[in-house]
Amino acid sequence: MGVVLNLDQPKRDGANASIAALVDLTAPDMERVNKLILSKAGSDVELIPEIANHLISSGGKRLRPMVTLAAAKMFGYEGENHVKLATSVEFMHTATLLHDDVVDESDLRRGRKTARMIWGNQASVLVGDFLLGQAFRMMVDVGSLDALDILSTAASVIAEGEVMQLAAAKNLETTEDEHFAVIKAKTAALFSAAAEVGPVIANASRNDRAALRSYGMNLGLAFQLIDDALDYGGSSADLGKNTGDDFREGKVTLPVILAFRRGTGAEREFWRSAIEGAATDDAALERAMGLMKKHGAIADTIGRARHFGGIARDALAPLEETPHKAALLDVIDFCISRVV
Amino acid sequence: MGVVLNLDQPKRDGANASIAALVDLTAPDMERVNKLILSKAGSDVELIPEIANHLISSGGKRLRPMVTLAAAKMFGYEGENHVKLATSVEFMHTATLLHDDVVDESDLRRGRKTARMIWGNQASVLVGDFLLGQAFRMMVDVGSLDALDILSTAASVIAEGEVMQLAAAKNLETTEDEHFAVIKAKTAALFSAAAEVGPVIANASRNDRAALRSYGMNLGLAFQLIDDALDYGGSSADLGKNTGDDFREGKVTLPVILAFRRGTGAEREFWRSAIEGAATDDAALERAMGLMKKHGAIADTIGRARHFGGIARDALAPLEETPHKAALLDVIDFCISRVV
Repeated sequence: MGVVLNLDQPKRDGANASIAALVDLTAPDMERVNKLILSKAGSDVELIPEIANHLISSGGKRLRPMVTLAAAKMFGYEGENHVKLATSVEFMHTATLLHDDVVDESDLRRGRKTARMIWGNQASVLVGDFLLGQAFRMMVDVGSLDALDILSTAASVIAEGEVMQLAAAKNLETTEDEHFAVIKAKTAALFSAAAEVGPVIANASRNDRAALRSYGMNLGLAFQLIDDALDYGGSSADLGKNTGDDFREGKVTLPVILAFRRGTGAEREFWRSAIEGAATDDAALERAMGLMKKHGAIADTIGRARHFGGIARDALAPLEETPHKAALLDVIDFCISRVV
Repeated sequence: MGVVLNLDQPKRDGANASIAALVDLTAPDMERVNKLILSKAGSDVELIPEIANHLISSGGKRLRPMVTLAAAKMFGYEGENHVKLATSVEFMHTATLLHDDVVDESDLRRGRKTARMIWGNQASVLVGDFLLGQAFRMMVDVGSLDALDILSTAASVIAEGEVMQLAAAKNLETTEDEHFAVIKAKTAALFSAAAEVGPVIANASRNDRAALRSYGMNLGLAFQLIDDALDYGGSSADLGKNTGDDFREGKVTLPVILAFRRGTGAEREFWRSAIEGAATDDAALERAMGLMKKHGAIADTIGRARHFGGIARDALAPLEETPHKAALLDVIDFCISRVV
C-alpha cells in the first residue's frame, strides 16, 4: 500500500547466487538431520523405509531444514532441538510430496519415477501419513508448544492450500491474488514455519520471530514463482524438471494466468483448448511459450518473484549482520538466480 | 501365559448390551464436540466442509470421542479440554476413513457412497490431511505434552498398521499373531489413545492411565474382530455393512485366516482362488461361509473378541465403581453383543 519497491535491485540479485554458505554453515547439523531422517523413517514394515529412502535420496536440496537450522543458530541457539525440528520440517515436506504425486497423478519427480509409480498410490498415501505422524512425534519430543503451534498450523494450511488448488484446477479465470493465496498456503507456509521455529526455540524476541516468519513466507512465494517460470524454460537447467511439465498437466500457474489475462480473444481460446481441453502437444507448448514471450508473462512472473524476494530481504534487514543472516539472504538470491 | 480366562462370561456378556448409558452421560459434552467438529471442519475452501460434513453426518456412532469424554470425567476432570481432545480423536478417525477408502478403493461406507466416489480420490487424500492438521492444532491448543505424545504416536502407529496391512494384503499365510499386530495398530491404537488421554488431562495416576490405555487397546481389538465376524453374517444387522464386503475385496480377516489354516488342501485351493484370484462371486461367498461354519471360524473369531473384551474389563476392575466406569464396561458388552 503506497510503498515503492525497487524491483530491479541490480546490486544484490545474483551477487551471491549460491547456497554454498548455508550448506557450509549447517553441514555438521545437517549430518545429524540426515541420520535422524534415516532413523525416524525406519520401521519393521519394510515398505516404509523403502519408500521414504526413495524420496529422501532423490536429490532434493534440503533447503527447508537448512533454513530451520540457520534460523535457530542465528539467534544463538545452543541446544539439540533444532535438529529435530529441521527433520520434522523435512518430513512434512516429504509427506506432502508423496500425497501431491498421488493427487497430480505424476509419473516423474526430479527426473526419477515417483513413489506411486513404483509402489502404487496406496502405499504413497499411507507412507505419507506415517511420515507426518513421525514429524509430529519429533515436534512433541522437542516440547515447545509454540513450535508445535506453528508447525501444526502450517500442516493444516498446506492441506487447505492443496484443496484450494484442486478446486481451482484448470480455472483460467483465476486472478493473480487468488493464485497467490494458493501458493502462499501450499508452498510458502512451510518455508515460513521452517524459518520461524528457529527463533522460537532460541527464545528470541517477538520481533525476531516475526522477521523470520516474514522472511520464510516471502522466500517461499519467490521460490514457487521461479519454479513456475522455470517450467516454461528459464535459461538455467533445473535438474529433473522438464520444460512444459506444468503445461502438459494443465496447471494454471502465474505465467499462464498473465498470458491468458493479457491475451486476445483468439489467444484465450487457445489457452482454453490447451488447459481445459488438454490439447497440450509440443506444437501447443511452443505456441504457449510464444504467447508468454509476447506478453512478457515469464519476465513479469520473475518480476513478482523479485518483489517477494525484496520483502524477504527487508524482513531480515534490522537484524544483526551474522554469517547465518548472510547465508539466509543468499538463499533469496539463489532462488531467483535460478532463472537469470 | 498360563492364565486361564473364562471366555464365556455368561453373566456379563449382553447383560447391558447398549451404549445408552454412555450416550446419556456424555450427551451435553458430545453436543459441544459436534459443534466443534463443524467449526473446525469449516474453511473458505468449500470442498472441505462439504466432504467433512458428508463423513461426519454419515451415522457413525462417535464411539471414540465418547470414550475420551467418559474417561476424563471418570477421574473428575472439570476443565474444557476433554471436548477438544475428543474432537481431535474423531478427526483423526475421520481422516483415516478418508484415506482408507482411497487405499481400499471402496465405493460404499455405511451404505452411502464414499467421499472418493463423489469428489474423487484427490480431494479425499487432501481433506484427510487437512482434518489431521486440524486435529493436531486442537491438541496443541490443549497444551498437554503427554496427550500430544499419546495421540501423535497413535497417528504414526495407525499409518504403520495400514502399511503393514497393505504389505500383507491377500497373504493367506498370515498368522493370527501377525494379524493381531495389524489390527492392534490400525484400529486398537486409536481406541487406546482415546481412552488414555482422559486420565492424562485429569492428572490421574500412572496406574489409572495404564488401566485406561489397556481398556482402550483391548476394546479396540474386540471391536475390530467383531466387525470382521459381522462381515460374514452375524445375526444382527449392522447398518450399512453388507455380508461379504470383505470377502469381495479379498481381505484376509481372522475368519478367513482360521478357515484357511484349518482347511483341507482342496479348501485351501478354494481360498487361494477366491482371495488371491479374486473369484468371489455369490457362490464363492456361500462356500466360504460354509467352510467357516465347518471349521468354527466365526465362533472362534467371536471367542477371540471375548478374550480381549475380558482383558478390557479386568483393566478397569480395580477402579472405583462410578457411572462412567459402568458405561465404559457396557461398551465392551455392546461391541461383542453386536453378533450375539
